[in-house]
Amino acid sequence: MGMNIVIIGSGNVATHLGRALAAEENVVQVYSRTIGNARLLADRVGCSATDSVADIVPDADVYVFSVKDDVLPALAGSIRSTNPDAVFLHTAGSVPMEVFKGNAERYGVLYPMQTFSKDREVCFREVPCFVEANDPATLQLALDLACRVSDNVRELSLEKRKTLHLAAVFACNFPNHCYHLAERILSDAGIDFSVMLPLIDCTAQKVHSTEPRLAQTGPAVRNDQTIINRHLSLIDDDMMRQIYTLMTQSIINANTNKS
Amino acid sequence: MGMNIVIIGSGNVATHLGRALAAEENVVQVYSRTIGNARLLADRVGCSATDSVADIVPDADVYVFSVKDDVLPALAGSIRSTNPDAVFLHTAGSVPMEVFKGNAERYGVLYPMQTFSKDREVCFREVPCFVEANDPATLQLALDLACRVSDNVRELSLEKRKTLHLAAVFACNFPNHCYHLAERILSDAGIDFSVMLPLIDCTAQKVHSTEPRLAQTGPAVRNDQTIINRHLSLIDDDMMRQIYTLMTQSIINANTNKS
Repeated sequence: MGMNIVIIGSGNVATHLGRALAAEENVVQVYSRTIGNARLLADRVGCSATDSVADIVPDADVYVFSVKDDVLPALAGSIRSTNPDAVFLHTAGSVPMEVFKGNAERYGVLYPMQTFSKDREVCFREVPCFVEANDPATLQLALDLACRVSDNVRELSLEKRKTLHLAAVFACNFPNHCYHLAERILSDAGIDFSVMLPLIDCTAQKVHSTEPRLAQTGPAVRNDQTIINRHLSLIDDDMMRQIYTLMTQSIINANTNKS
Repeated sequence: MGMNIVIIGSGNVATHLGRALAAEENVVQVYSRTIGNARLLADRVGCSATDSVADIVPDADVYVFSVKDDVLPALAGSIRSTNPDAVFLHTAGSVPMEVFKGNAERYGVLYPMQTFSKDREVCFREVPCFVEANDPATLQLALDLACRVSDNVRELSLEKRKTLHLAAVFACNFPNHCYHLAERILSDAGIDFSVMLPLIDCTAQKVHSTEPRLAQTGPAVRNDQTIINRHLSLIDDDMMRQIYTLMTQSIINANTNKS
């Protein structure tokens, strides 16, 4: 039987969470302001699609909002359910659940912490999910729902979720950008980025068993100014040079303050 | 039979390369200015140890220098072999092979590109190794030696090796430092760093099949200034805030210039 769920949004998180939920519950509709995107996800989960807020299924059990943070308040305000027990959930790391206050009696958050890309499969069962809700019954519903799709679910307050989101930017977005900068450096020299993959993998694996500060290697942690200056002389791009300088200094500081 | 090899150095690279070489050739001696470190490695590979330059085996076939870049020139100058065919190799990413000029007739580089820590096992066969030498016969010897320990060996000029070394700092040292900063953020909130590991692994895996720029997610690539400012307000540490600001701007630029 399962709950009737409406997915509001069709981006990376909506796509992966929507598909994971559809395997366990009844995803009855996908809304996106772009009908083509709504249809893409709706076709994958086997439900209807709409780009009209007025046409959103009014009596679903759960509405999952997975849209850009800055459109969430307006969208939340424009959707009312005829079901007084309907639960509104959003999936954002840094937005308070009170964004739903006044639009629903029961609301909360289901934040899946992972880097999702539409075309890339993820094993959702391994994605850590963090849940919060405005009353105990809604919390239990949100926890149950999260546990249907993930083996790694816990309750977490807004304050801690914000901290987690910030840490995730450092653990995921910034390393990924460093990979991009490495790729640019290599491509200027005609070297394929794939040569870096064993190093990238090993760097990620190391911190499974070693504290990151102790896992550090390279010229900065050795404070090898000869190599650092040689590297800086190789960098043409001003912002890349700033990043090299700042990260190097921060590595030196981390090593000096704590060792 | 195999070649007689002396390992000069006892650090992370010396330890892993020395052990890999010892499984294939005759490592006859380990030199370190700290006898305890020399003995540690010598015991693992089953050879003698010394902390005296004067006692270094004079007639070995190959001398592998794996020491800090700034002590390499002086050390290279203080060691002479009685074997006129002896090959001097160093393992540094950014040092010219000519550091050996005048001290040996045959010399070159064997640069293993990986993040080594002494206590952590690595599969050396998967480590990309980059080789250069001062004449064709020495190049062949260095390539052969590298192929005994790695399945991923290629010849590379100094200029390209320098570029590779710089890219490796971006692909390995800086991401690892970002992991450290994430750990600091989490530990201040009483959250265990292990919660980040699925995200870190997925971020590394993604760039095996997706260009890093296209794999990017998070507030910076969406140019979500609300979240970016909320994150900045959570960061107490001045240098960490500078890193957040600079990396965020660099991600925004990368996305603006090329998409």
